[in-house]
Amino acid sequence: MSEFELLARVRERLPAPGPQVRVGSGDDAAVTVPTGATATSVDALIEGVHFRRGQGSLAQIGHKALAVALSDLAAMGAEPGEAYVVLGVPPDLDEDGCMEVLDGIADLSATTGTSLAGGDVTRAPVLMLAVTVVGHAPSPAELVTRAGALPGDALVLTGEIGAAAAGLLALERPATRAAVSASVAERLQAHQLEPQPRIAAGRALAEAGANAMIDLSDGLGGDAKHLAEASGVGLQIDAGALPVAAGVGDLAAAAGKEPLQLAISGGEDYELLAALPAEQLQVARAAVGAHSPLSRIGQVVAGSGVEIRLPGGEPLNPTGFDQFD
Amino acid sequence: MSEFELLARVRERLPAPGPQVRVGSGDDAAVTVPTGATATSVDALIEGVHFRRGQGSLAQIGHKALAVALSDLAAMGAEPGEAYVVLGVPPDLDEDGCMEVLDGIADLSATTGTSLAGGDVTRAPVLMLAVTVVGHAPSPAELVTRAGALPGDALVLTGEIGAAAAGLLALERPATRAAVSASVAERLQAHQLEPQPRIAAGRALAEAGANAMIDLSDGLGGDAKHLAEASGVGLQIDAGALPVAAGVGDLAAAAGKEPLQLAISGGEDYELLAALPAEQLQVARAAVGAHSPLSRIGQVVAGSGVEIRLPGGEPLNPTGFDQFD
Repeated sequence: MSEFELLARVRERLPAPGPQVRVGSGDDAAVTVPTGATATSVDALIEGVHFRRGQGSLAQIGHKALAVALSDLAAMGAEPGEAYVVLGVPPDLDEDGCMEVLDGIADLSATTGTSLAGGDVTRAPVLMLAVTVVGHAPSPAELVTRAGALPGDALVLTGEIGAAAAGLLALERPATRAAVSASVAERLQAHQLEPQPRIAAGRALAEAGANAMIDLSDGLGGDAKHLAEASGVGLQIDAGALPVAAGVGDLAAAAGKEPLQLAISGGEDYELLAALPAEQLQVARAAVGAHSPLSRIGQVVAGSGVEIRLPGGEPLNPTGFDQFD
Repeated sequence: MSEFELLARVRERLPAPGPQVRVGSGDDAAVTVPTGATATSVDALIEGVHFRRGQGSLAQIGHKALAVALSDLAAMGAEPGEAYVVLGVPPDLDEDGCMEVLDGIADLSATTGTSLAGGDVTRAPVLMLAVTVVGHAPSPAELVTRAGALPGDALVLTGEIGAAAAGLLALERPATRAAVSASVAERLQAHQLEPQPRIAAGRALAEAGANAMIDLSDGLGGDAKHLAEASGVGLQIDAGALPVAAGVGDLAAAAGKEPLQLAISGGEDYELLAALPAEQLQVARAAVGAHSPLSRIGQVVAGSGVEIRLPGGEPLNPTGFDQFD
């Protein structure tokens, strides 16, 4: 299989690109006609670093590579536009295997309205994917950065946290799965293997007036810190209000980990953390509601840093924050 | 060194982004406000596949990763805009090594007016770079694709060919270097290690009315075939008119290779091959002249395929074309 033959086979499978794409895959560059502002992000997934082959399907690896990139667009409140994919093919992955990876990308691109507009296929020592995504908005003002949270803003979170980290535990240490039902273990593992970018919720939060937003890739603790630093504010998080996914506690305990710590520092939730004016909370909840639960987990305060308070009122053991740095 | 610390050190060194970039590196996504059309391309360079560490400097690896991506924009006649860089860091590359790679990227981005607007740094088994570049033009009509060459068009080529392939020979088989002077060997190796994207020449050719254009990454033979296929035409190339770089013949001979074959199939020239109306030839030569020589190497004809004729008139041994497929 030559690179050209593989590329031809890939192009055959691509859904037709959206109207903004004037020249798609196959020329020196893709040509698009954006209107307004674009948001662009790139993420790489590398075998042995970000995933292990065999823990899930090849299609799930493709899905996840595009999903984590699209999650950054969700965190801007952008509409997905185009994706550009680098596929590094290891010696032990045949053409059908490549197609399975690309099918995972193509399926998510179809459900999210993302045009696969270009890419590069190359040999590599391990399976690797680098995905660049371009999203669109009518103007820069409609995109939500990490900077902009104001003291008094409510801090809200889509979905649940901890599932992906618990799912990784279940995949890496199969013995821990016995701590939860088979269906719960499956669901946690699916969060790890096949995360869903919160695109609709991100746009709804942007439209509801979010002042700052970030997606949880490193974990709530670390990403809250990024948002606080970018905005020049402090964040108070009420640990009792955190929407920890079902089964996370049992799986964490079976692995000898502190459940709340796992949920806060585990990462890969790909949920959205946003700061928005408290008076917009109801509007936001109504707008996001169709796509995801929305929990109020704390507030923005003057100052700096992230403080997570346990239900009793005392702060979470601050040494736990070392790993967020 | 954590990813965050490395990213912070990287951001400190970045030149200020251009006016189209509203939010640069450091948020979930970069925000730009393109006007008109964008051209987007992505290329990966992987250690052991595309380069060997030690043959050149780390800065040259960074330079080349951006250069090959920008070469695709040159082939569209686009103005470089933004670049997004994935850096995969192997266990044996320390922070200073990463900075050297990134300095090579930053230097070329500065000389080409490219804003480094985002990226991703990750661990990897080998040094790898994936660079996405976005170029701009007032409208899609001003960008030149591979499709559009018309029978009767003149076929023109910037610069010289064969230097990068001969340079690779000199790097891989040091004994061959004795066939040329030290300065010629240096120049050939520099073409391999530090290619220069033909950005200004690409824009000049686009403005002079080029109907189709492609950059030579796979080699003149293969890339001419891509242009012919995309345009639905045939190409006649006069081998005697090919601007083969000085020293290529001697180095090829020392390595037991056919010089013309090496120049045509060697690849990585990153020169531009364009089809343009014959009456525009003088205008094009004047416009490109400040940046690069421009050779007329043949013409576009009705039909299909690429025919390379030797000075005597007989076609170049067609078996040589097998590797262009």
